[in-house]
Amino acid sequence: MSRTIALLTDFGTADTYVGTMKGVILSIAPGVQIVDISHGVQPQNIDEGAYLLWSSYRFFPHHTILVAIVDPGVGTDRPIVCVRTSKHLFLAPDNGILKFVLAEIGDYEVVRLSNRKYYLPDVSVSFHGRDIFAPVAAHLATGLPVSKLGKCCDLLTQPEWLVKIESQHRATEGRVLHIDRFGNIITNFTPANQLPAIRAVRVFRKAGTSKSKRIQAIRATFYPTYGDAPTNTPFAMIGSSGLLEIALRNGNASSRLKLKAGDHLKVEVVYEEE
Amino acid sequence: MSRTIALLTDFGTADTYVGTMKGVILSIAPGVQIVDISHGVQPQNIDEGAYLLWSSYRFFPHHTILVAIVDPGVGTDRPIVCVRTSKHLFLAPDNGILKFVLAEIGDYEVVRLSNRKYYLPDVSVSFHGRDIFAPVAAHLATGLPVSKLGKCCDLLTQPEWLVKIESQHRATEGRVLHIDRFGNIITNFTPANQLPAIRAVRVFRKAGTSKSKRIQAIRATFYPTYGDAPTNTPFAMIGSSGLLEIALRNGNASSRLKLKAGDHLKVEVVYEEE
Amino acid sequence: MSRTIALLTDFGTADTYVGTMKGVILSIAPGVQIVDISHGVQPQNIDEGAYLLWSSYRFFPHHTILVAIVDPGVGTDRPIVCVRTSKHLFLAPDNGILKFVLAEIGDYEVVRLSNRKYYLPDVSVSFHGRDIFAPVAAHLATGLPVSKLGKCCDLLTQPEWLVKIESQHRATEGRVLHIDRFGNIITNFTPANQLPAIRAVRVFRKAGTSKSKRIQAIRATFYPTYGDAPTNTPFAMIGSSGLLEIALRNGNASSRLKLKAGDHLKVEVVYEEE
Repeated sequence: MSRTIALLTDFGTADTYVGTMKGVILSIAPGVQIVDISHGVQPQNIDEGAYLLWSSYRFFPHHTILVAIVDPGVGTDRPIVCVRTSKHLFLAPDNGILKFVLAEIGDYEVVRLSNRKYYLPDVSVSFHGRDIFAPVAAHLATGLPVSKLGKCCDLLTQPEWLVKIESQHRATEGRVLHIDRFGNIITNFTPANQLPAIRAVRVFRKAGTSKSKRIQAIRATFYPTYGDAPTNTPFAMIGSSGLLEIALRNGNASSRLKLKAGDHLKVEVVYEEE
Repeated sequence: MSRTIALLTDFGTADTYVGTMKGVILSIAPGVQIVDISHGVQPQNIDEGAYLLWSSYRFFPHHTILVAIVDPGVGTDRPIVCVRTSKHLFLAPDNGILKFVLAEIGDYEVVRLSNRKYYLPDVSVSFHGRDIFAPVAAHLATGLPVSKLGKCCDLLTQPEWLVKIESQHRATEGRVLHIDRFGNIITNFTPANQLPAIRAVRVFRKAGTSKSKRIQAIRATFYPTYGDAPTNTPFAMIGSSGLLEIALRNGNASSRLKLKAGDHLKVEVVYEEE
Repeated sequence: MSRTIALLTDFGTADTYVGTMKGVILSIAPGVQIVDISHGVQPQNIDEGAYLLWSSYRFFPHHTILVAIVDPGVGTDRPIVCVRTSKHLFLAPDNGILKFVLAEIGDYEVVRLSNRKYYLPDVSVSFHGRDIFAPVAAHLATGLPVSKLGKCCDLLTQPEWLVKIESQHRATEGRVLHIDRFGNIITNFTPANQLPAIRAVRVFRKAGTSKSKRIQAIRATFYPTYGDAPTNTPFAMIGSSGLLEIALRNGNASSRLKLKAGDHLKVEVVYEEE
């Protein structure tokens, strides 16, 4: 069987949560291909999980079943949904983790899981990854129609679009989605068409959730690639997912600038040396 | 081939120990399915490895070969055993890592490895995972009978049963088995049948290995699920493996209470608000 | 299909870089076996990546495609090469990451990648793992001849041989290649034939890159295995890859001796108790 199940969770890999899910999957769908997207989402950080899923989903084969679990509401009555797009199936709690993917795709159908026939016989209150997500994904991989899982419904959570960098000299509000292993600061800003003329960006970091207190202003020159940038000075680039990143050649921009996932930002485009 | 080999070790994933084992396995048994249970056991912590194996093994398909390596005695003459149960094969050093699994299963046969024909030609003194466990597991996956590996024997190490929480107001002794990624404190206490009447537990932490010095008493109210518990107050629940856990909603109970794997505990059940 | 693709990178596993590569691979070569060698190479540490690849490659099945990406020059015009040996294919930037492997193998052919037909349609400047390495490896796994990728060439980087420990009482220069999960200090020294007579080694640690300042001298007695060594005293052994390691039984030698990957060393052999 060449069907693929791809897993994104905040479970880490030091515990046996992910391994146990794979045991359940292979008990139901022997030979299915299982791929780890990442299990390193910060515990219960739905926003980061949504970004990581969005950054990777489009590279998976047609008919892949993408299972995304960052689920602080496990054990409550939050719904679990299966979303069918023209290319993929997604299985996730309806808590926003699909927000970037679904804004991009636009066209999809949602089924809310209710048929316990495809769960494990005993469903715990704290590990639905093992007891619901894994067996349902495995049954889907063996060909179970989505319609067997439950009824069509609307999502409780809303899609979220990425933030276009404005062409005017007006600050645009956004945030840090993720810090990667190299310390690159990945934002939810994406360039509009006029990008080639951009020379630099000014990034204003806001303190916590208070509205407008500027505690830091960074002027980051644009470079097309790491190799072109000077060492020792943070710079701006469009990363491999098409988002504005602040990076530091041969260094860690996140440590240098003390920016972390979830930090609020404003970004201004600089078109000429000023 | 749909036979599965599942790996649990303390090797981590930053080194090439696990990847090398997989290379050896695939050289002998091309196409076999390899699953990582976890490689994050604390270095040489047999007790934690025993718990992690126990928490996951029953979810793997029939005929899975479960390889468990936490092996401070590597290179000495400690035995390696293959244990056959009605459902699975286990391959492990005979050092206690199977103690919880075998207490639960009860019925099993043990063979002590001695036939070097199924090892790599050169066996190092420090990496039996690569030189013995991987090739033997791969040969088993291709259908080699367990009896070819060596002779039947008794285990040198004893099974260990989980600790039933006593119904009386008497403190029961146990310990912390594992701290998971979310900071949940997982103990070796398991509820007896009268659990539904339990309102809370009192946990006494003992200092190191000294016998009875109470350095901390925690009263943790029982909640069925994370979502029901208050934030900011550690609470007790029965986790997804059926063990008593101390958790902190949207927080890290282990950091808060300064409890870690191996810490000795006493637990008292509270049946009424006192 | 039983062809194997083995991946070694400095991407870590918390981001989606590795998972995305696997999505690309499976889109082109459904059912191919993908193995993680390690993704824990220190960011941009080519020397460590070269060691980790060397320590594991020979254990992979014939025809395995080994993809090694530690690539600070991504986005510049550094070449990517496919190296064919009698047993394996290697795909890597031409930056030295193959240096230990190729010194050992000796006989190989090199093709420099230039045929964009086997890349993803849009090649980013910062993620060639996804856009070049993954699709090219997948096409090779489906049977694409290496000659289709580009033209034969010589490598820009040189093979590097491991350092034989000298038989005289003369200090030999080398370095720490890697610290493993257990804190073992793995060096680039390998024993010559007279090793059995060695009683101990003296290791001199040099400060940074300055030439000869001895800041630390360690006398480490040789033991054949961890189990034979005393606790609490660092000792020398030949590790599972055949290299000189400094280890600490039931402890972490790297923390104790404050040695890390890249540190320069001199080693002197001691043949008699002195």
